[in-house]
Amino acid sequence: MYSFNNDYSEIAHSKILELLAKYQFEQNVGYGLDYHCEKAKELIKNHFSVDVDIHFLVGGTSANKIVIDHILRPYEAVISVDSGHINVHETGAIEATGHKIITTKGINGKITPPEITSIVNEHHNEHMVMPRLVYISNSTEVGTIYTKDELAQIKKICEENNLYLFLDGARLGSALTCDDNNLTLDDIAKLTDVFYIGGTKNGALIGEAVVITNSSLKHNFRYTIKQNGGLLAKGFIVGMQFEALFTDNLYFDLARHANLCAKCLVTGLKALNIEFAFPPQTNQLFITLDNNLIKQLQEKYLFEVWTCHNDKSTIRLVTSWTTNLKKCEEFISDLQKLILKK
Amino acid sequence: MYSFNNDYSEIAHSKILELLAKYQFEQNVGYGLDYHCEKAKELIKNHFSVDVDIHFLVGGTSANKIVIDHILRPYEAVISVDSGHINVHETGAIEATGHKIITTKGINGKITPPEITSIVNEHHNEHMVMPRLVYISNSTEVGTIYTKDELAQIKKICEENNLYLFLDGARLGSALTCDDNNLTLDDIAKLTDVFYIGGTKNGALIGEAVVITNSSLKHNFRYTIKQNGGLLAKGFIVGMQFEALFTDNLYFDLARHANLCAKCLVTGLKALNIEFAFPPQTNQLFITLDNNLIKQLQEKYLFEVWTCHNDKSTIRLVTSWTTNLKKCEEFISDLQKLILKK
Amino acid sequence: MYSFNNDYSEIAHSKILELLAKYQFEQNVGYGLDYHCEKAKELIKNHFSVDVDIHFLVGGTSANKIVIDHILRPYEAVISVDSGHINVHETGAIEATGHKIITTKGINGKITPPEITSIVNEHHNEHMVMPRLVYISNSTEVGTIYTKDELAQIKKICEENNLYLFLDGARLGSALTCDDNNLTLDDIAKLTDVFYIGGTKNGALIGEAVVITNSSLKHNFRYTIKQNGGLLAKGFIVGMQFEALFTDNLYFDLARHANLCAKCLVTGLKALNIEFAFPPQTNQLFITLDNNLIKQLQEKYLFEVWTCHNDKSTIRLVTSWTTNLKKCEEFISDLQKLILKK
Amino acid sequence: MYSFNNDYSEIAHSKILELLAKYQFEQNVGYGLDYHCEKAKELIKNHFSVDVDIHFLVGGTSANKIVIDHILRPYEAVISVDSGHINVHETGAIEATGHKIITTKGINGKITPPEITSIVNEHHNEHMVMPRLVYISNSTEVGTIYTKDELAQIKKICEENNLYLFLDGARLGSALTCDDNNLTLDDIAKLTDVFYIGGTKNGALIGEAVVITNSSLKHNFRYTIKQNGGLLAKGFIVGMQFEALFTDNLYFDLARHANLCAKCLVTGLKALNIEFAFPPQTNQLFITLDNNLIKQLQEKYLFEVWTCHNDKSTIRLVTSWTTNLKKCEEFISDLQKLILKK
Repeated sequence: MYSFNNDYSEIAHSKILELLAKYQFEQNVGYGLDYHCEKAKELIKNHFSVDVDIHFLVGGTSANKIVIDHILRPYEAVISVDSGHINVHETGAIEATGHKIITTKGINGKITPPEITSIVNEHHNEHMVMPRLVYISNSTEVGTIYTKDELAQIKKICEENNLYLFLDGARLGSALTCDDNNLTLDDIAKLTDVFYIGGTKNGALIGEAVVITNSSLKHNFRYTIKQNGGLLAKGFIVGMQFEALFTDNLYFDLARHANLCAKCLVTGLKALNIEFAFPPQTNQLFITLDNNLIKQLQEKYLFEVWTCHNDKSTIRLVTSWTTNLKKCEEFISDLQKLILKK
Repeated sequence: MYSFNNDYSEIAHSKILELLAKYQFEQNVGYGLDYHCEKAKELIKNHFSVDVDIHFLVGGTSANKIVIDHILRPYEAVISVDSGHINVHETGAIEATGHKIITTKGINGKITPPEITSIVNEHHNEHMVMPRLVYISNSTEVGTIYTKDELAQIKKICEENNLYLFLDGARLGSALTCDDNNLTLDDIAKLTDVFYIGGTKNGALIGEAVVITNSSLKHNFRYTIKQNGGLLAKGFIVGMQFEALFTDNLYFDLARHANLCAKCLVTGLKALNIEFAFPPQTNQLFITLDNNLIKQLQEKYLFEVWTCHNDKSTIRLVTSWTTNLKKCEEFISDLQKLILKK
Repeated sequence: MYSFNNDYSEIAHSKILELLAKYQFEQNVGYGLDYHCEKAKELIKNHFSVDVDIHFLVGGTSANKIVIDHILRPYEAVISVDSGHINVHETGAIEATGHKIITTKGINGKITPPEITSIVNEHHNEHMVMPRLVYISNSTEVGTIYTKDELAQIKKICEENNLYLFLDGARLGSALTCDDNNLTLDDIAKLTDVFYIGGTKNGALIGEAVVITNSSLKHNFRYTIKQNGGLLAKGFIVGMQFEALFTDNLYFDLARHANLCAKCLVTGLKALNIEFAFPPQTNQLFITLDNNLIKQLQEKYLFEVWTCHNDKSTIRLVTSWTTNLKKCEEFISDLQKLILKK
Repeated sequence: MYSFNNDYSEIAHSKILELLAKYQFEQNVGYGLDYHCEKAKELIKNHFSVDVDIHFLVGGTSANKIVIDHILRPYEAVISVDSGHINVHETGAIEATGHKIITTKGINGKITPPEITSIVNEHHNEHMVMPRLVYISNSTEVGTIYTKDELAQIKKICEENNLYLFLDGARLGSALTCDDNNLTLDDIAKLTDVFYIGGTKNGALIGEAVVITNSSLKHNFRYTIKQNGGLLAKGFIVGMQFEALFTDNLYFDLARHANLCAKCLVTGLKALNIEFAFPPQTNQLFITLDNNLIKQLQEKYLFEVWTCHNDKSTIRLVTSWTTNLKKCEEFISDLQKLILKK
């Protein structure tokens, strides 16, 4: 069995395990105040032309919850597309901090400026929550990405309407290294108020690096982390990982590998005239197949069945920093055989 | 500089790093549903004669928050001694889930049955919160431990008053392996409703194993974990660590080492007639010294200054799974010299 | 200016003010434990063949918040149509207690059994909230009502899926006394787990009577009321009002009057071929008019503009226990003149 | 039976019921935006030389919850004496909004500046909540009052430590009209950031007037009210009551009457050498009597037994705007007889 189930099924990249072994008995101060965290922050800050605060957190849901909890007043709400991770797959973590998520349909997993305007206009008095934050993901939950122009337009609408912009970068590596991308890390820092650089899905054991660019949000962020149970005693473990990932461009190389594998799949799938449910841009591909084909593929491959429609279903294939390119070719070849056999 | 600051200043035990390296490229399913977590659970369950559920969480504050959030109805409250970790050092994490902590003085960091009775009697109608849970730590935040008899009495009072009993075992290893201890893991399972076995402070990178013994609390616990941002994508990383810790008694050996080092310090400190703020039983020692002595020690050693009283202060010395026994002897010898010099 | 703006613009019915004057200096115990509350409960219980608990609360948002807060565990969610009051017009009061509202489109403000089934099927694991409660309003926020058969079908689906059913009866009087209705108070008690009988919008100063029919929800409800700031010191004031409202069928007579006035408007509007946005069944009517017509009507009448569509808008006309029937006729006559003038 | 149980056992003052009758059929806009609320605000504002915002709320617990919820960020905490109403008698309403109450002993129900300083000093990093608000009551829960000098000193400490000051005025009338008082309403506006003028316990049906003096706290307060279920549909009912209470000094006259009755009791009790648990200053008196004396008094009078100590108990006697002075004299005379009989 080979797994295209997700991008967090293997432990971590060797460079990371090597650092852990190297510093195994070094005594560090706790709670992320050590020099590895400092060094990792410096390495990341090299990518920015603006002044940012960086905090290392444990995982994606935790990062989303902490950032949103930190920003919003009780009566303020966050805007998201229906498919946003915070809306669907976090067991109400945002609502558990007291905040409504105002949802909108979006296009291919991405929010559009008119949708934001429309939500703002509908929420005009104290009988309704006050929209105060827009949440987007890049790459999105359906594998698509925002262009620089799209992001700039969203930021503009946010500024005009007193809304903060938060970008969930659980898969930011894959977004920034795919062919269609024209954004840099620095662009993202300039065009959002806060975002994070995902480690868990790009070669780390655990860890996400939250980058706060808006000064008014920097204050007391560690209080919010701690209150939400996100302040790791051994914070240096996450620091070291980002130290490894941001040395010699490892972070981007790993993401590039995931995209390369995805591209191999896309080329093959297109040749087989397979239908894509969303534009294939990064390391998450959504394709629609006959259910009996899916059943046969499942004998050899692991993947998620996303949605079902009568005798067809959409499945998700995910490649990662450690996907075996040969396995991608094998998958295409197996699929081709199954189609021909039909 | 040598650090007696805490028991989480080094990365992790070699057996743990070896397992991570060994399984580096193995593909595992996510969110703690993998076979390493299963295996670790089996290894831990071998210690129990009762049927328990086990869940692996990231850290102590997170574990406390999740367990308490899971148990209590909105109007229900948790009872703790003033010095309880949830009351002092978790930035209101429990209150952030909506629950009051009812505090009482305790003796040497431990709650007493009469204090529980008294709180229950005072909270008798709907104008006050309803006490529903007693929170204790073993070892406590001041390094003391509960005896089997003490724990049994607390459990009895809890049962008589419809209260759950939750034991914070962030430092359970140190408690169970110290000279004064007469409790086993199985005793604890029988005498509490839920507790956890701390990994972070006993050789793990991260991770605490929550053990639920009361059937009525087992239901839907994974929902509460996820909602609180505590469900790690790479759950197998924590599973593997407990696999290592519960193979060949490693967990207990590490804790025993910490206690051995502490004992070395205690013997030396007693010989020097140093005053202990709390009975020295486990790997946390609280001693009171003149401030100028402390200042001189700080040139060579790292430790926490706990409380200040005019020209004296109480400091905390913590030993760990990886403390160098020679450094303990050196500390005593240095202290002796400083005292003589005075 | 005459107001069709809402059904809570006048103080209260005379019978209520008379009771307040009559008992002005009577000394009563506080917090709803007085004999007026008891008497009012008895009068209401006469309508039920099942055993219920009754609690008097201050207002609608407060009642919705308290009931839902009482029922749900942190990870559990409530299902509602998009137009549900809890979803739109309560400033995130439900999310503020930590719970997600899962929304669905509905038909004419009413939820359908297939929508409930579909939501339940989509929420199948711990990465998503667990649906546990269905919220409906009768009459709905758009003035429509549930038939006995519709309510029975919803209850059946709820029971099959371990969901509680909560009926918001802020305008229950109007629902139960309209021509299309075939439900009794007792039917509602049998077909829901909890509901409330709205007083504020049917002649009371303040006050809603929450009726809990499911025994498992009765426990400790007063704790939840108090914690949410809903336990009135002078609870007897609300008790007395329901005493008045449930003596000699006053509650139903007042609602019948509101419906009578609405019917007068409906007849007139239909004769003028005015378009209804929702079937006109109770005391809330939604009609679509040219914007310039609306502007002219606003010189003489107060009403809410509900939604705007280019040069037309939908307005809401509300009649109440104290609406002047002549003013309804006058409104129709004025509208007719304005249409003819065009 | 005559009740000294509390100051909210009778419906309301005649002037209030008269206003309700007078305006019974007047059509008003909802949610406190009517002209009665405006007029009441003007009448109250006449007492202030500073610019304030006024909002009418339903009750004390609700007012405390809403004000504190509005002010604090999630990780911020409120400081209160142990006996503070928010700490003891609100069923964890404050914690339910996510905030810790940091408690201190106080003297006679009043907080002292050194206690505030000490709490601030102890809470110095992100592992602990951040104190941000001091909560006091005037008169206090044990019937004592703050002098102008005491309040000024507390305000000074608050300003030096970036703390807001909130004064719970559920019984402000009684405080401001007692013999020992040297504060005016305007002093209170100048020496706090927010406070409220209690109506429920001084002749109103329901209602407290929150006065916000600190500009930075005025923003969006109605959102917080609504989210907490505190925005009454018929807001004008509360407005009218404060219109009545702040016309011709009725509010102060009612409170003065309560104090007069209390003074009558105090004089009598002192003559009988009865022990006061707290200095008797306002309309709440706490006296300690033999249990058998209490039992005999309970045959004729209603009052709360506050605390029990072996064969004695402390009881609370409360007088109100409508207490019968003769009944006070009768109580003393009855007590005297019982003592003599012994």
